[in-house]
Amino acid sequence: MQSVNLGLIGLGTVGGGVARLIMKHHDKYLEHYGIDLVIKRACSRDQAEAERIGLAEGVFTPDWHDVVNDPDIHIVIELVGGEHPATEIFEESFKNGKHVVSANKALLGRHVEHLASLAAECGVQIRCEAAAAGGIPVVHALEHDLVGNDILTIAGIMNGTTNYILSRMQHEGLSFEEVLSAAQAAGYAEADPTADVDGFDAASKIAILSSIGFQTRVTTDDVFMQGIRNVSATDIEMAREFGYTIKLLAIARKTDAGIDVRVHPTMIPNSHQLASVDGAMNAVFVVGDAVGETMLYGAGAGSFPTASAVVGDIMALADPIAKGGAPLPEQEPFGRNMPIRPIDELKTRYYVRLTVEDRLGTLAACTNAFAECGISISHISQTESEDGETCTLIYVTHEALEKDIRKAEATLEALDGIREVSSIIRVENIDAWTEGVFAN
Amino acid sequence: MQSVNLGLIGLGTVGGGVARLIMKHHDKYLEHYGIDLVIKRACSRDQAEAERIGLAEGVFTPDWHDVVNDPDIHIVIELVGGEHPATEIFEESFKNGKHVVSANKALLGRHVEHLASLAAECGVQIRCEAAAAGGIPVVHALEHDLVGNDILTIAGIMNGTTNYILSRMQHEGLSFEEVLSAAQAAGYAEADPTADVDGFDAASKIAILSSIGFQTRVTTDDVFMQGIRNVSATDIEMAREFGYTIKLLAIARKTDAGIDVRVHPTMIPNSHQLASVDGAMNAVFVVGDAVGETMLYGAGAGSFPTASAVVGDIMALADPIAKGGAPLPEQEPFGRNMPIRPIDELKTRYYVRLTVEDRLGTLAACTNAFAECGISISHISQTESEDGETCTLIYVTHEALEKDIRKAEATLEALDGIREVSSIIRVENIDAWTEGVFAN
Repeated sequence: MQSVNLGLIGLGTVGGGVARLIMKHHDKYLEHYGIDLVIKRACSRDQAEAERIGLAEGVFTPDWHDVVNDPDIHIVIELVGGEHPATEIFEESFKNGKHVVSANKALLGRHVEHLASLAAECGVQIRCEAAAAGGIPVVHALEHDLVGNDILTIAGIMNGTTNYILSRMQHEGLSFEEVLSAAQAAGYAEADPTADVDGFDAASKIAILSSIGFQTRVTTDDVFMQGIRNVSATDIEMAREFGYTIKLLAIARKTDAGIDVRVHPTMIPNSHQLASVDGAMNAVFVVGDAVGETMLYGAGAGSFPTASAVVGDIMALADPIAKGGAPLPEQEPFGRNMPIRPIDELKTRYYVRLTVEDRLGTLAACTNAFAECGISISHISQTESEDGETCTLIYVTHEALEKDIRKAEATLEALDGIREVSSIIRVENIDAWTEGVFAN
Repeated sequence: MQSVNLGLIGLGTVGGGVARLIMKHHDKYLEHYGIDLVIKRACSRDQAEAERIGLAEGVFTPDWHDVVNDPDIHIVIELVGGEHPATEIFEESFKNGKHVVSANKALLGRHVEHLASLAAECGVQIRCEAAAAGGIPVVHALEHDLVGNDILTIAGIMNGTTNYILSRMQHEGLSFEEVLSAAQAAGYAEADPTADVDGFDAASKIAILSSIGFQTRVTTDDVFMQGIRNVSATDIEMAREFGYTIKLLAIARKTDAGIDVRVHPTMIPNSHQLASVDGAMNAVFVVGDAVGETMLYGAGAGSFPTASAVVGDIMALADPIAKGGAPLPEQEPFGRNMPIRPIDELKTRYYVRLTVEDRLGTLAACTNAFAECGISISHISQTESEDGETCTLIYVTHEALEKDIRKAEATLEALDGIREVSSIIRVENIDAWTEGVFAN
C-alpha cells in the first residue's frame, strides 16, 4: 500500500475543516479503506492558522508554488477561492501531473472548459463536489449515479444565506434589510453580501451542475440572475395566501429551444418538497428521464459539511493511488454548445405588485396595460395602504412570456397614478420539470 | 475503445427496464462517455419477454449458465431476485472473472459477507445501488461521497408499498385493509404483500445500508422488524392531533451499546422532512459527523427508476473497461462485528392505545400498571367508543425502556376490564439522530 500525499492550499473555513477532518479520521480511513492520507504540505498566508489546526512542523509553507512543485504530492486541494492565483494553481498542478480537488465555484462556473481540457491533456482529474451545494453529493450523482438518464431538470436552493434570510422573513414577518443585518451580525451573511443576495453564488453553482448534467457548456455568464433584495414581507405574505412560498431557486431545464437556466426569487406551491427547506439548508432537485424526481438535501456550506465533500473527492482519487494505480484522467470536455434560451422566451405565471395612487380609474388603467400586452390575468386584489394615499395592487397572470411582462412593466411604469412596479416574481410551473419522464 | 459486453439475467420489471434504457440511450452513452454498452446475452424463462423488449436475435437464452460462462461478457446483471439461483449466478460469475450488478436485497441483506469475500478473492466487484431505495443513489453516497465521515445514523422510508398505504390511510381516513385491497387491485401491492407490509423488504435494505455505512456486518436477521398491519385509522388520527405522522421507518444508529437497527411504524413530528414524503416515494436520511444531516429522496421502486440505478452501476464498471483498464476489485469485507443492541434496550417514548371496558376503576388500574413498570406518562386521553361498552385509552409515555413497555403490555393484558392492547407505536427521538455531529 502506498501513502497518498496531499497538498492543501488555503487553510480558512473550508481548508481548516478539511485538515481537521483528515487528522481526526486518518486511522479510520486507513483501517476501513486501506488509504493512508498524508498532509504533506499546507499553504496559507497566515502561519498561525496552520498552528491552530495542529499541523506537523515542516508542513506549512506561505508559498503555493512549494505545494504544486513538490514531486511527492499526488493531489492538490485548492481552497483559496477566486480566480487568481487559483487558475495558476490548477494549471501548474496539472502540468506537474497532480489531480486537483476544489470548492471554487466562482472559477469553475466561468472556466471549467479550459481547466477540464488542460486536465484531460495532462492525464489528471478535477473533482469539485464541494463547489455546488456543499456537503450534498449532487455533482457526483450527476457525474456517476445518474449517467444512465437523460437529465431533464436541475433545480433547487443552492445558497444558504438567502434561504436563511427568506425563511426568517417568512416565519417572523421581517423585512429583507432587518434580517440581513441580523444575519451579518450572527456571521450567517458576509459583510459584503452581494455574491449571495444578488444570486451570483447560486448562478455559479447552477452553471457547474448544468454543464455536468446536460453535457454542454454553461457558464455563470449564461445564467439569468436576479437576487432577493426586492422581495418584501408583503410579497411573502401574499404568497402564503395563495398557498405558495418564495424561495431563491436556481433552475436549469433542457428544452427544445435550448437550455433554460436562471436564478431568481420563485413562488412554488407549499406542498412541494423545496418549499419546506428551511434556514441555511440547501436542496437540489434532479429529474432524469428514467429515475424521475429525486432530491438531495443537506448543508450547503459550513466548515465540516464542505470538508465532507472535499474528503469524499480526495478518497475517490486516493483509492486507486493507494492500490498502486492511477485515477482515470478527466474526460475531454464535451465540445458541445447547446444554445441558451433567452430569458425573454420564458413562459410562466407572474405575480406583480404595484404601488398606485388611490384614485378613480387607476385599477382599470393597470388592468388594461396587461391586456394591451397580451397578458391575461387570473387574480387581482387591492389593499389600501396605511398612508391613505396609495394602494397595493396585486396581479397574478396566467402563463405569459417574459418579454410581454417586460413590455407590461414599461407600460405600467409610464402610467399616470402609478408610484412603482414594486415587485415581479415568477410563479414556477413545477409540472414542466418532469416533462419527458418515462412512464413505468 | 473497447466495447463493454453485458449479460442480463432476468427480464421482468427491472430487467426489462434496464434493457430498454440501455437500448434507448446507447448512442448517448457512446457519444458523451465513450462507453459502448452491448447486451451480449439476456436470459429469462420466457422468450416472449425478450421479444417484447426487442432484443436482437441470438441474444436470448433460457439458461443462465450461457451468460456466466460466456468468455466475452464483462459484467453480469443479476435481476432474478431470491436466493437461488441468484447465489449460484454470483458465485459462477465471480469465478469467471465477471463483475456483478444486482438489485437483490433479499440475498445481499443476508449473505453480503460471503459474496463480498468471494468477489474480493476473484478480483471483481459487486455493485448493488438498486438493492436499497431503488433509484436513490444512497449506496453510492455511503460507499464513496460520504466516506470522509463517521456515519452516525441512517434512517428513512425504504418501502414504497407501505408508504403508499400509510399515506392513503392518513389522507383519506381509510383502514389498512381497505387501502391494501385497493393497492393490490391497482398493482401497487403484491398479491402476497407480506415482504412489504411486515417490514422484511425494508429490513433487508437497512441491513445493506448499515453494513456499508457503519463498516460492520449487519444482516437482515439482526434487524428488529414490525410491520404496519396493526396501525389503525385511529392511531393516525391521534398522531395528527399530537402533531405527528406515522411512517414505517427503517432506522440504524451507531450507539455506544452497539448498532441499534430496527424497522417499525414510527411517530415523527410533522415538521420533519420525512413526514412529508408521500405516496410510493422513498427517502433516506444519512447523518455523518462532518456533513451533518443529509436526505436523499426519490422513487424507491418501478421499472425505470430501478433501471437508472442499475445502469449507473454498469457505467461505473464500464468506464475503466472501455478505456482498456479494469475496475478495482471488491474491498475485503470488514471482518468487524459490532454488537447489535437488543431491541429491549431501546429507550424512546411510546404511544399506547388500549381498548377497555367502560367501567369504574379501569383508567386507574391501567395508569397504575405503567407506574408499576417504572414508566411515567406524559399524556392520557379517553374516548368513548360507538358501541357504548368500551372506551379507547391513549397513553403517551415519557422516555421508557422497550423491555419495561413489554412488561407493562403483559401487565395490562392480564388486567380485568381490558379488552386488548390495540397498538403500541414508538415515538422516535429525532434529536438523537444527530448526536455526535461536529460543531462548525
